[in-house]
Amino acid sequence: MKNPEQTLGKFIDRQSTAFIGSLDDDGFPNIKAMLAPRQREGLRVFYFTTNASSLRVRQYRHNPQACVYFCDRRFFRGVMFRGRMGVLEDLESKSAIWREGDTLYYPLGLLDPDYCVLRFTAESGRFYSKFRSEDFALA
Amino acid sequence: MKNPEQTLGKFIDRQSTAFIGSLDDDGFPNIKAMLAPRQREGLRVFYFTTNASSLRVRQYRHNPQACVYFCDRRFFRGVMFRGRMGVLEDLESKSAIWREGDTLYYPLGLLDPDYCVLRFTAESGRFYSKFRSEDFALA
Repeated sequence: MKNPEQTLGKFIDRQSTAFIGSLDDDGFPNIKAMLAPRQREGLRVFYFTTNASSLRVRQYRHNPQACVYFCDRRFFRGVMFRGRMGVLEDLESKSAIWREGDTLYYPLGLLDPDYCVLRFTAESGRFYSKFRSEDFALA
Repeated sequence: MKNPEQTLGKFIDRQSTAFIGSLDDDGFPNIKAMLAPRQREGLRVFYFTTNASSLRVRQYRHNPQACVYFCDRRFFRGVMFRGRMGVLEDLESKSAIWREGDTLYYPLGLLDPDYCVLRFTAESGRFYSKFRSEDFALA
């Protein structure tokens, strides 16, 4: 892959769903579907909205080891990033990715104590396409 | 949920893709999309075909802690099973779920040394629907 940032950036931006991986208290991997990231900085940092009260948030507070996966089922391609997930609850981070309509999920709006931000920072990546996988460097 | 086996069984059988979670050498969660399970025994046991040479197989041989996740993106529902993944390479297991056309993936057929079976055995389950999650018992 010559230009991962361009090739995979486009691929990621077309997906409406992301899958996040976490570790539970017994050390088992867990998976959850999420709305696509609200914002990304290249292939390094992804921001998600979520419920502060959720099981996933509790898990990441306990252990930030994480992965984020995007998948195109039709063409059977997938990209996985391995890294760490941070839980952000400051107003600045929360307002940076807030969108109109989010009150559907967080009735009290930006100040809803159940609204928080997950910031994933990738350390490595792996791309699967045409029956083979390749690791790629993050710029 | 009154009858998980019926409700979730139908839900699972409609999905063309499953997502499997594993642990890598550094203890990070990993995710991969798979073809839907070839066979299932209730909500307890799921069988997948895969490449014996794959990274996932190596991970499960090292640590069988696993999860399997099914997701309906349209209705934003998901079910996750936590359990253990076994790698089977005996001919009986391999022929039990072999299908015509699998030579696309395993050119040497049933005896292809790169063809193997993943058998996932669930220990617990969690269902997400309508913005809330619930754990359910496995019959």
